[in-house]
Amino acid sequence: MSAGGGRVRIYDVAHLAGVSVATASKALNDTGRMTDETRAKVKAAATQLGFRPNAMARGLIQRRSFTIGLLTNDTYGRFTLPVMAGISEALVDQGVSVFLCGVDDDPALGKLHLDAMLDKQVDGIIASGKRVDRKLPVDLSNLPVPVVYAFTEGHEGSVTLVSDDAQGSTEAVEHLKRLGRKRIVHVTGPESFASVRERAAAYRAAVGGEGIVLHGEWSEHWGHAAVDLLWTAEGARPDAIFCGNDQIGRGVVDALRERGVGVPEDVAVVGFDNWDIVASQTRPPMTSVDMNLKAIGREAGRLVLELAEGRAVEPGIRKLPCSLVVRQSCGGSAAVTHRRGGVEATVE
Amino acid sequence: MSAGGGRVRIYDVAHLAGVSVATASKALNDTGRMTDETRAKVKAAATQLGFRPNAMARGLIQRRSFTIGLLTNDTYGRFTLPVMAGISEALVDQGVSVFLCGVDDDPALGKLHLDAMLDKQVDGIIASGKRVDRKLPVDLSNLPVPVVYAFTEGHEGSVTLVSDDAQGSTEAVEHLKRLGRKRIVHVTGPESFASVRERAAAYRAAVGGEGIVLHGEWSEHWGHAAVDLLWTAEGARPDAIFCGNDQIGRGVVDALRERGVGVPEDVAVVGFDNWDIVASQTRPPMTSVDMNLKAIGREAGRLVLELAEGRAVEPGIRKLPCSLVVRQSCGGSAAVTHRRGGVEATVE
Repeated sequence: MSAGGGRVRIYDVAHLAGVSVATASKALNDTGRMTDETRAKVKAAATQLGFRPNAMARGLIQRRSFTIGLLTNDTYGRFTLPVMAGISEALVDQGVSVFLCGVDDDPALGKLHLDAMLDKQVDGIIASGKRVDRKLPVDLSNLPVPVVYAFTEGHEGSVTLVSDDAQGSTEAVEHLKRLGRKRIVHVTGPESFASVRERAAAYRAAVGGEGIVLHGEWSEHWGHAAVDLLWTAEGARPDAIFCGNDQIGRGVVDALRERGVGVPEDVAVVGFDNWDIVASQTRPPMTSVDMNLKAIGREAGRLVLELAEGRAVEPGIRKLPCSLVVRQSCGGSAAVTHRRGGVEATVE
Repeated sequence: MSAGGGRVRIYDVAHLAGVSVATASKALNDTGRMTDETRAKVKAAATQLGFRPNAMARGLIQRRSFTIGLLTNDTYGRFTLPVMAGISEALVDQGVSVFLCGVDDDPALGKLHLDAMLDKQVDGIIASGKRVDRKLPVDLSNLPVPVVYAFTEGHEGSVTLVSDDAQGSTEAVEHLKRLGRKRIVHVTGPESFASVRERAAAYRAAVGGEGIVLHGEWSEHWGHAAVDLLWTAEGARPDAIFCGNDQIGRGVVDALRERGVGVPEDVAVVGFDNWDIVASQTRPPMTSVDMNLKAIGREAGRLVLELAEGRAVEPGIRKLPCSLVVRQSCGGSAAVTHRRGGVEATVE
């Protein structure tokens, strides 16, 4: 099933006949229960549009329910909703709906909702979360339908999509270096997060040495505290601060302004996440690394459909590129390679 | 089906037997396809737990799929995810799962996803959105399953749950008055929003006159601009600013601090939404009106189940109370009536 070109899709037939995709599929396959009138209407629509699935597509359509289940423990939706938007974007042309179910961190709840999804005969499941180094509280390793993981830890031998934290971090630091910054400090979140360690390692490699890495909580408060620390310590002060997320970045920018330190004149600041509500409201608006969660979602949707259609997909962790979104806080221009929506992936 | 007490639920039976609720229900009703072994296992679990549904419950269980569909056009999840958390809370004890589907503002997408939900034979649908005076882009007025609206406009004669904006606004202003504030100004969002007009009208009634209402966009930027406006105008300056949302409130607090105006000493500030990421990070942390979206969700879940079980529910718009969450920006203490989670409703 291809989304492109002038190819007539089952979705178009369903739309013209005014029925659901599943009903259209059953009508064309002479299966399912419906009135003769409905079946005739669907067939007329297929004829009118010139819809002719080949034998293989016909077989696939027959077995499919045109729904994908999305399980998440990210109840705030900060990471999962952009992923969901990407999944929907990838699937809507195929007439497939995505159903999201929140499982918190409760295994019983996870089992209940997973069972409900399997009962509804979803064509596949995408698991998503709030960090790449934690599993959902439910075992998805042995299901009768394909599973793809996006922004959460997958099981052994699974297909897992994450953002390339090291590449995002490197881009941020290289950008600051190109702007002539020499003393770049990294203020970030708790070391217990794999993404924090990965970003810090890439920062160290990019500055070409140990650098200075300050770990704290994911909050504006920590951004303020880190600036206090750096500006009351002896020795040369940083001329750039690369922050582990946008909330820390916002705290840093506010703290610098209140100390009379110019951003970006004296100190350039770059955040991580590109969370619009934070990055664009910072004064000045903050340059930030975007994890392209929507692209991760699109890729997850594409892959789960491939698997549902019986095609082979190479297992492993696929890292999708981040992109640097340049605003005013780093003093540079936006003439940086943007790779938003890129789906080139490195399979490890 | 009652959630309380020591009553054994179908969910408990399913859990013990290690099957889904739907399977347990089919096993006990001698319907559906499964192995004899599975059916026996469920019946053994029911016997062990002493599960005995009465005739009516048996009939209801038989027809039910133990899923509720949640349709929303709030792709950011700001309003819908707290509502969803409340729905889940109300339904999980009944073994019911909630499936969320995002429809943007696209009627074709709305129809596709609604059809998918109906195909899956959900027991009911809850519609949710990002504002109470806009409908979803899909007609839900004539469905074969019950529909409840939460935080979006419902159809004629429907059951609709919204927050009581006027009461929330009144509580905020009365709190400021009790703290001795005399010149309370209202800085809020666009007048085109029904909730803005309702909050402004309640503000006017509470200050006992026209007051001053400034309309702008829902942003920190507008909070800054409003303070510039108020502090460069002639005449007495406000000693309290009641803001239409937390982002405006945060801009107001920052702008006042930068002008050297003390919050709360010189000016008390109250926001609306109690969006933790904004209200608790403001310096000082901001008092704000909470719309209790989770309570709205719980009530929506409870009502859609009542309808699904064939019980009568009075149609109309039910307004659920807001509560004032007191932090430091208003200079008062937290000794205010909290009604978080209250479900007393006024049917209009």
